[in-house]
Amino acid sequence: MSEVDAIFEPSGVILIGSSKLREKVGLSSPQLFRSVTYNMKKFFRGEVYVKDIEKGQDFEALPKVPELAVIMLPPEKSIDEAEKCAKMGVKAFIMITGGYKDEQRQKLLRLKERHGVRILGPNTVMGVINTANGLNTTFEMDLMPKRGSIAVISQSGGVGACLLDWACYYKIGISKFAFMGDKIDVDDADLLRYLAKDKETRVICLYMEGVKNGRKFMEEARKIVVEKPILALKGGITQESAYRAKSHTASMAGSDEIFDAAFKKAGIIRVEDPEELLNAAVALSKQPPMFGDNIAIVSNVGGPAILAADAVARINLKLARLSDDTKRKIESLHPGLDATNPIDIIADARADRYKKILELVLADKNVDGVLIINMLKSCFFEPEDAKVIPEITAKYPNKPVVDVATGGEDFVLVYRAIGESNIPVYNLPEKGVKVLKILRTYGKILERLGKAQKN
Amino acid sequence: MSEVDAIFEPSGVILIGSSKLREKVGLSSPQLFRSVTYNMKKFFRGEVYVKDIEKGQDFEALPKVPELAVIMLPPEKSIDEAEKCAKMGVKAFIMITGGYKDEQRQKLLRLKERHGVRILGPNTVMGVINTANGLNTTFEMDLMPKRGSIAVISQSGGVGACLLDWACYYKIGISKFAFMGDKIDVDDADLLRYLAKDKETRVICLYMEGVKNGRKFMEEARKIVVEKPILALKGGITQESAYRAKSHTASMAGSDEIFDAAFKKAGIIRVEDPEELLNAAVALSKQPPMFGDNIAIVSNVGGPAILAADAVARINLKLARLSDDTKRKIESLHPGLDATNPIDIIADARADRYKKILELVLADKNVDGVLIINMLKSCFFEPEDAKVIPEITAKYPNKPVVDVATGGEDFVLVYRAIGESNIPVYNLPEKGVKVLKILRTYGKILERLGKAQKN
Repeated sequence: MSEVDAIFEPSGVILIGSSKLREKVGLSSPQLFRSVTYNMKKFFRGEVYVKDIEKGQDFEALPKVPELAVIMLPPEKSIDEAEKCAKMGVKAFIMITGGYKDEQRQKLLRLKERHGVRILGPNTVMGVINTANGLNTTFEMDLMPKRGSIAVISQSGGVGACLLDWACYYKIGISKFAFMGDKIDVDDADLLRYLAKDKETRVICLYMEGVKNGRKFMEEARKIVVEKPILALKGGITQESAYRAKSHTASMAGSDEIFDAAFKKAGIIRVEDPEELLNAAVALSKQPPMFGDNIAIVSNVGGPAILAADAVARINLKLARLSDDTKRKIESLHPGLDATNPIDIIADARADRYKKILELVLADKNVDGVLIINMLKSCFFEPEDAKVIPEITAKYPNKPVVDVATGGEDFVLVYRAIGESNIPVYNLPEKGVKVLKILRTYGKILERLGKAQKN
Repeated sequence: MSEVDAIFEPSGVILIGSSKLREKVGLSSPQLFRSVTYNMKKFFRGEVYVKDIEKGQDFEALPKVPELAVIMLPPEKSIDEAEKCAKMGVKAFIMITGGYKDEQRQKLLRLKERHGVRILGPNTVMGVINTANGLNTTFEMDLMPKRGSIAVISQSGGVGACLLDWACYYKIGISKFAFMGDKIDVDDADLLRYLAKDKETRVICLYMEGVKNGRKFMEEARKIVVEKPILALKGGITQESAYRAKSHTASMAGSDEIFDAAFKKAGIIRVEDPEELLNAAVALSKQPPMFGDNIAIVSNVGGPAILAADAVARINLKLARLSDDTKRKIESLHPGLDATNPIDIIADARADRYKKILELVLADKNVDGVLIINMLKSCFFEPEDAKVIPEITAKYPNKPVVDVATGGEDFVLVYRAIGESNIPVYNLPEKGVKVLKILRTYGKILERLGKAQKN
């Protein structure tokens, strides 16, 4: 087991903090210490040791040396404790707090050189989450995402916390969460390499403001994307925001064009905001890449289907031209049906009509991907009817399908019915189309790398 | 009172349907009749008469002639009933059901010529809502938006229902809702003219696929936007989607470029999807237009502030350069503060620091609008702290302010605290910036029309 593994999968963890010290700038506080302790004791399925430096405890008492130490103290005290841990045989460190000066960072790095330990941080703020073993070093009490296959690496505590909040609220399945902080040792490439071989992870999401050792990172990414898609949200694209990024995570943000070109070359898919990042990740974790541009839209209402068709054109995808045979079969199913894509299957459509039409559309070789719209308001469709969608699409595992339940309550009801299935559900046609575009982008990346498996 | 007024503000309403007839394509059904009756009896503060044509009732029994008839029958029967109503003195009609042939549309129009009545529809599907008097002819039982100042006109039942669902779910204040259907009589321009003088309405939202009598409509719009901003979402921008739009609402969609130019000339603000439409409407209903490009970002977290700054640049707004005086005052408030915009006011900021910094930023004449970010996760900020924002911004009524509470639960909590105030709240930095851009666009429209009142 490499030392980076010990950050996510330690057999035992020691939490080191103070029940008294409060340090405004650097984040150390008794409250933070208590919260992390609470979360670890509640969620982690492994040994948890707690050391309050005010109590004069020492490590001799430990029955077994923990593999990971999570340290929540001001810089000098953190370094002292880390040194003791390293000498004792602790393999990995998560340094939660910030406020380190350069020479303090150097001291930490010397620990690595001397003892071969690995260090995440400092200034990781929230540390890491591993939903497989319950490791949770965040200080937001009781916040634990659902177990799943999406890994998130965030360079920013704020954006990471936003993504984590979003994932918890919408019950998005997460494998790992890592807040990188100042990256004096463990960096983007190290984490990528770990996630590449992590069996729980199928999709990797990055929020980055800058990158350390860019070449190494991009090479690593390029190897990984063949197996696992990587999505990146890049912050700090302008001079002013880059200034803030620099003061924020001590990383130099390169020019945006350079990043863009490097992402493209590495096969990393760039997204524009946190919502798109998670929307795309959910789709990539549940649906195959798309190996063609042709979208069929199947909807029980006209207007939203028109908006979806507009979005398809705007985003440079194509509306599939169904074969005459498919059209004839669809139109024979129900009087008044016009199978011209976008296909309006009429407001009285229920599970059965969706099922039959979806099957015909998925079987049509002119169709590369499908956007389904089911509206509840002013229609006959019931949330339970949506369950036919994952059933029928399972027979066509190589064509991506996404579902759209427009609006507020409608989305909640349909999401409740099939949100746990393999069908991603979005609340607007435009979001569903954007995600299909990302599945297409991933398909193109695989085609370029010679890994496409079009059926 | 004009006859279009009678559609929204009738003293009495008669609902005409059948407890037996079911007609699949045209929408007539006993269930729809029951639901509309339920909604009208529950919400409408005025006389409601109900005529079931199966019961051989006739109009003689009515104590007073109602001003509005809502008819939910197949075409021929609808026309018969409308004729009887018109003869009796009913002034306005909402024709819910569709499936009319051309000659049937002509018959309806002759009623208008002969009796001077006004007709909304046919095929309006959901008819209208007026939150001021409780008029609600939609058949979605118990769905009634909160009273407010946003009017929505939708040419599509599906998109209208999506907007209505969204408005109800997020408690967005609505003045009027109108589903236009086939527009054989009352058209976009008529409704605009009505909403222009409606005291309840401050912002007008349109979903349109095509327009009847475009010149009249654009002239009307141009007169109105000086007082009330108009937002438009246009469906059917491509050949394929225009085909569907034509079969969907029997309207010819013009070329997208022509619409775009006409919207610009008329001062109508175009948006790209239903969420942006309502987000922008909420901002325009609560905040002043923006008379300059310079945005200040005030945030308790770094990463989301960087994303907001990126969005400002991407959307062609500018990050405000605070005056040296403002910067000095801000930096003196708290150790570690760096007042370079985007201003990171540090994770331990609570109401008091927000208040002081907001006041300094709003007073700076280099600032034209403010985006506030308050994150709860990993910060000290509590939802109640947000209440300081509407308080302090009320002192600067000419500079728009929007708030962003990133994520899922965070958004819900902050929205609950200040969602009813004059401060619009969004769940992503990018959405807040987009809305500021729309406030800027409205400011430019007013500048162009000579109505700007910059302070």
